[in-house]
Amino acid sequence: METTAILTKEEFLKHWLGHRDLTRRTLEKFPEKELFEFSIGGMRPFSELIMELLSIAEPGLRGTVERNDKPYSHKLALNSKAELLARWDADTPKIIELFNQIPEEDFHLEHNLFGEYKYPIYSNLLYFIDNEIHHRGQGFVYLRALGIEPPFFWERTK
Amino acid sequence: METTAILTKEEFLKHWLGHRDLTRRTLEKFPEKELFEFSIGGMRPFSELIMELLSIAEPGLRGTVERNDKPYSHKLALNSKAELLARWDADTPKIIELFNQIPEEDFHLEHNLFGEYKYPIYSNLLYFIDNEIHHRGQGFVYLRALGIEPPFFWERTK
Repeated sequence: METTAILTKEEFLKHWLGHRDLTRRTLEKFPEKELFEFSIGGMRPFSELIMELLSIAEPGLRGTVERNDKPYSHKLALNSKAELLARWDADTPKIIELFNQIPEEDFHLEHNLFGEYKYPIYSNLLYFIDNEIHHRGQGFVYLRALGIEPPFFWERTK
Repeated sequence: METTAILTKEEFLKHWLGHRDLTRRTLEKFPEKELFEFSIGGMRPFSELIMELLSIAEPGLRGTVERNDKPYSHKLALNSKAELLARWDADTPKIIELFNQIPEEDFHLEHNLFGEYKYPIYSNLLYFIDNEIHHRGQGFVYLRALGIEPPFFWERTK
């Protein structure tokens, strides 16, 4: 599929990392107690949304690179904001390293992500980012409901 | 920038249209009154978030194609769910037609979007989608708070 790239692999990664930075700053804004307890309309607290994101990004990318189809588990033994932030920060360099191992020509190969989602790799990776934006947007509402100003959506680096 | 595309122009458009379809179904779920009146934490009601999206997608793409830098206006004279849905549906074929007019090789050109956001075209278009996902995620929280089940996030076509 030789063509003029509308978006290069490096730009895609930079886009993702910008979102990860914004999500990290959203997580930082939550008070400890509300991070684990506050929710609206029966939804999960933001800590659980973050654990979902953690259980998708690095493990999903690792499964993609290693072509394994291990299922995901959103239940992580992370019980404080500090632990969530530490895992977030530990995963970022792994994500960069794993992502860089996927050759351009593999982005259209199908991978059976988590043994459940058999789609082209580019499509699964877009889903990771979409899902992060979606849940972070929900975190913004939680913060507003708590009277806390969220980070600026358009600001993608510290 | 000849390379193996990780994502083609057609795939990018399909991705966007899938999101538009999900956002439309989210809009449909709102009761008329709550669409214009309900909000959480001082945020805008979902009707205003939809008007923001309407004032970005088609006008922003038109500005990009015509290389004009007319400012946006989020204030649209749309006062019912039916009017919002009608505008949404009217814009979709225009978006397809405008998007298809941008040659692959132009995606890395800078355009001063709305006279304010001078970035490569691919970056502005990614922002349109990100912003839609972000605000739709907020709409999901509004729906949950109203006791209404949102559409499935992963379902992108009717």
